[in-house]
Amino acid sequence: MTQDTASRSAILLISCPDRQGLVAAVTDFIARHNGNILHLDQHVDADENVFFMRVEWDLSAFTIAPAHIASQFGAIAERFGMAFQLHFSDQTPRMAVFVSKEAHCLYDILYRYQAGEWRVEIPVIISNHPDLGTLAEKFGIEYRVFPVNKDNKAAQEAAQLELLREYRIDFVVLARYMQILTEGFVTHYPNRIINIHHSFLPAFAGAKPYHRAHERGVKIMGASSHYVTAELDAGPIIEQDVARINHRDSVEDLIRKGKDVEKLVLSRAIRFHLQRQVLVYKNKTVIFG
Amino acid sequence: MTQDTASRSAILLISCPDRQGLVAAVTDFIARHNGNILHLDQHVDADENVFFMRVEWDLSAFTIAPAHIASQFGAIAERFGMAFQLHFSDQTPRMAVFVSKEAHCLYDILYRYQAGEWRVEIPVIISNHPDLGTLAEKFGIEYRVFPVNKDNKAAQEAAQLELLREYRIDFVVLARYMQILTEGFVTHYPNRIINIHHSFLPAFAGAKPYHRAHERGVKIMGASSHYVTAELDAGPIIEQDVARINHRDSVEDLIRKGKDVEKLVLSRAIRFHLQRQVLVYKNKTVIFG
Amino acid sequence: MTQDTASRSAILLISCPDRQGLVAAVTDFIARHNGNILHLDQHVDADENVFFMRVEWDLSAFTIAPAHIASQFGAIAERFGMAFQLHFSDQTPRMAVFVSKEAHCLYDILYRYQAGEWRVEIPVIISNHPDLGTLAEKFGIEYRVFPVNKDNKAAQEAAQLELLREYRIDFVVLARYMQILTEGFVTHYPNRIINIHHSFLPAFAGAKPYHRAHERGVKIMGASSHYVTAELDAGPIIEQDVARINHRDSVEDLIRKGKDVEKLVLSRAIRFHLQRQVLVYKNKTVIFG
Amino acid sequence: MTQDTASRSAILLISCPDRQGLVAAVTDFIARHNGNILHLDQHVDADENVFFMRVEWDLSAFTIAPAHIASQFGAIAERFGMAFQLHFSDQTPRMAVFVSKEAHCLYDILYRYQAGEWRVEIPVIISNHPDLGTLAEKFGIEYRVFPVNKDNKAAQEAAQLELLREYRIDFVVLARYMQILTEGFVTHYPNRIINIHHSFLPAFAGAKPYHRAHERGVKIMGASSHYVTAELDAGPIIEQDVARINHRDSVEDLIRKGKDVEKLVLSRAIRFHLQRQVLVYKNKTVIFG
Repeated sequence: MTQDTASRSAILLISCPDRQGLVAAVTDFIARHNGNILHLDQHVDADENVFFMRVEWDLSAFTIAPAHIASQFGAIAERFGMAFQLHFSDQTPRMAVFVSKEAHCLYDILYRYQAGEWRVEIPVIISNHPDLGTLAEKFGIEYRVFPVNKDNKAAQEAAQLELLREYRIDFVVLARYMQILTEGFVTHYPNRIINIHHSFLPAFAGAKPYHRAHERGVKIMGASSHYVTAELDAGPIIEQDVARINHRDSVEDLIRKGKDVEKLVLSRAIRFHLQRQVLVYKNKTVIFG
Repeated sequence: MTQDTASRSAILLISCPDRQGLVAAVTDFIARHNGNILHLDQHVDADENVFFMRVEWDLSAFTIAPAHIASQFGAIAERFGMAFQLHFSDQTPRMAVFVSKEAHCLYDILYRYQAGEWRVEIPVIISNHPDLGTLAEKFGIEYRVFPVNKDNKAAQEAAQLELLREYRIDFVVLARYMQILTEGFVTHYPNRIINIHHSFLPAFAGAKPYHRAHERGVKIMGASSHYVTAELDAGPIIEQDVARINHRDSVEDLIRKGKDVEKLVLSRAIRFHLQRQVLVYKNKTVIFG
Repeated sequence: MTQDTASRSAILLISCPDRQGLVAAVTDFIARHNGNILHLDQHVDADENVFFMRVEWDLSAFTIAPAHIASQFGAIAERFGMAFQLHFSDQTPRMAVFVSKEAHCLYDILYRYQAGEWRVEIPVIISNHPDLGTLAEKFGIEYRVFPVNKDNKAAQEAAQLELLREYRIDFVVLARYMQILTEGFVTHYPNRIINIHHSFLPAFAGAKPYHRAHERGVKIMGASSHYVTAELDAGPIIEQDVARINHRDSVEDLIRKGKDVEKLVLSRAIRFHLQRQVLVYKNKTVIFG
Repeated sequence: MTQDTASRSAILLISCPDRQGLVAAVTDFIARHNGNILHLDQHVDADENVFFMRVEWDLSAFTIAPAHIASQFGAIAERFGMAFQLHFSDQTPRMAVFVSKEAHCLYDILYRYQAGEWRVEIPVIISNHPDLGTLAEKFGIEYRVFPVNKDNKAAQEAAQLELLREYRIDFVVLARYMQILTEGFVTHYPNRIINIHHSFLPAFAGAKPYHRAHERGVKIMGASSHYVTAELDAGPIIEQDVARINHRDSVEDLIRKGKDVEKLVLSRAIRFHLQRQVLVYKNKTVIFG
């Protein structure tokens, strides 16, 4: 991973119908303008005949100014029918964290934030409860409470969206936020709202997954991080992991053990997102290496 | 595990309402008759107030003859309302394997059988296809083909049951047998038919789990071994395990990688069953250590 | 696990030469005095002929006052040559955390402390560097700095020991404390100093394990939590876990991924210790279920 | 993975000093001659400034005949100082398996061989013991016994090498072959002898790893597959995996559980080798995705 290196790099995420010459066209563009490839990963979905690529190159000798790369690459993109995103390693995305009362994911996020593990800015934490305000305060991050009930949900979501705009938020992380966002809200951040669900999806989607896992007597439980879509717990999965359990584990044990899985899975998903390693396609994700 | 030791041991599996003095009563019974405990594991389901125990003891100095242990223990069992099973380490259970066309689980079973890893007798392999007959023959095990279709299913199951009786089969292993057994069949072997389902249950119960896992874009897939009940893929889970996958894996890759998980999960479940480590309770299993 | 239940329980950890009647003698003692067993786990090391047991019982109807249990049980212990420890679920052990500059393990500990996940008191954090003082302050825990060099090591350890005594510390957690404690120090807390080593011991004991793992090209790396003994990284292992890596991972990636393993492994080891689930024997641990 | 597709593909494995334009040069070569890239994976070792690449492309419309690809690509390779290997998906490598008395790895290999999971030919199994001859015979594979002792080792290795030449063996798999091959032997098959060692290397290299793992009281054990070099158990690691164990597991349990890890790790390593996914560099492996 090159984000940590001193020099600036560009990252191109591409998808298009597969055909001959795609890699050659892109890498030739980079080489001709004196870019040195730091990392390239591509994937062809043979069933769908779709090509995916992530390429990152060093800009130190690149002969096109960053501001003009997108337009100059546009000609190649057009020729091949490519959809593409261009990112730069020195951009710092702005992330808002939504929480309710549970602190484990927020702690994990705040540790990484404070340790500089991620290149990210967290200007605001949003909650439907005041409980974690003290923790946010310890880290000097603004904490805004929006109590939500049936009657005020639309108004509160509108106010939250306004706040996100104000803070120029790039993406949202639901760190065990116990409210279901409306489709209206989700539409504003397509593939830019990351949720952690406390089950091994698609098993136990919806409410109380640990209770249902205990009831079913599974021997392994898990957590799943996914982009939020209109359909509950059905968006593209970014990352999953599991933990072994046994008959001795009560629901409380599942909850406790589950928290350790949840926080790591969510933090890994956030990292993939920040590193521009994720492409969403047909409600699935390609996670580039 | 003591099955491999030269001397004979007895295994008692107990369940009853929890109350004071249960362990004391059982272990006193063993100690008074000169039994040395090799292994004891107990569990209390605090929600249901049910007590479970597995205890295994050395019979070399035990003063009650094996044939009389059950009746003599009966008085204790009655006093505490215990349901119990008594097994002996030198009994060799008789297992029938049902297969269709896939060989991976059968190979794994035959390897362990030939290597003496399990104390078990496999007198017969039953299939709805002739394909694996050659493999069975290599290992000198009788292979019986019962082609099954809508019209003859009842008759074929009756013939299979007859064969199982003839061979005095104690329990049945469905090693990727691609037929759904009727409730009528299952009733004859309650908690004695072990199936391997190629998904991480309860996700992807039913047909084509790998296709559906691929479609959903999960990052981890699994296999589940369970006792067969009337409801499809819904019986008590004995063992599960998982494998990590990614966007590069086609359905064929999932099938290939899944086979490795399936065979190990099934073989571990068979071992638990053979070692008398399993108690079924409320459609869940207690797996004793 | 019963620590969280409202009622008080007693925990007995026992080891002695194996012989007949051990479980019966202990459980009879409990039953005769109206104790209801909540959990019992035993183990026999057949090679060494040693018996181990952990039993926990509810004290609500127990007819011996807690203060007299040890002396009354003493007669049984003597008869069988048992070494034993008696603990009570409502005792709150006092733990000191030693750190250097890395914060990940400390964060994980502080989260669990603040969330009430463990029954423990942390009156003091000790470090050889001032760096994590701000974090300790956020959580209102005293932070004491003891800069250590070749010349002052003995004096500083003496001062640390004095501080531990002052605070009536029961056990010490080295949460990535980058100093080797002298044998003199270790002797004061036998099997009561828990370290986290950032490798899968016994591989890469000693300095710079991630660099050496990278150099060797291993495909899986790990972390190990163990009790500290006089010999470096050679004490009884309490818990280990691993993470998969590949050729893309630089030393920095190993360090980053390793931190996630380290913090979970250390926290699990602390929990085992707090729950009185650990018995040390022949430089190994029995971890009771 | 494209090995299973009907059409023929070429695979190029490349390593060279990193510089600008490498990917462009190679992919342009492919595109200019009407090759469609099926899969491309590259890696730059930033510390060593070395570039690695594996690229596979469809030959159905490729305008250079397979026999001339290497020479035509040679000009590019020379310009960039590339070391390269060229393989074709329809080549069937020839593999010899060396065994002693343990059958678990051989079973796993024979299952995959018979099921057509790998594109490989196994003309001969070599052993220092007659024990597994019956198994080999069941599968119609020649089995040759070379009893080895101190005095005849050199002569027997010479005879084995002669046999490998006779059978035009491309690579050798040591499926728990309990003899150490001499440097003289190894030299004939550089990075073409795959061994399975029954520990998580570098822990417990050498003899009796399970006994030593048990003695040390580790909580996780493993297996490692590596290319054989002159130094014992020190060659480039191809694949590793682990299994969780606990204090209940005797050495016999470790051996039993270890076999399941060994066979899967070895078979995965064989697959990587057959798929041309492995490049060896500085005693480490790059495993292409």
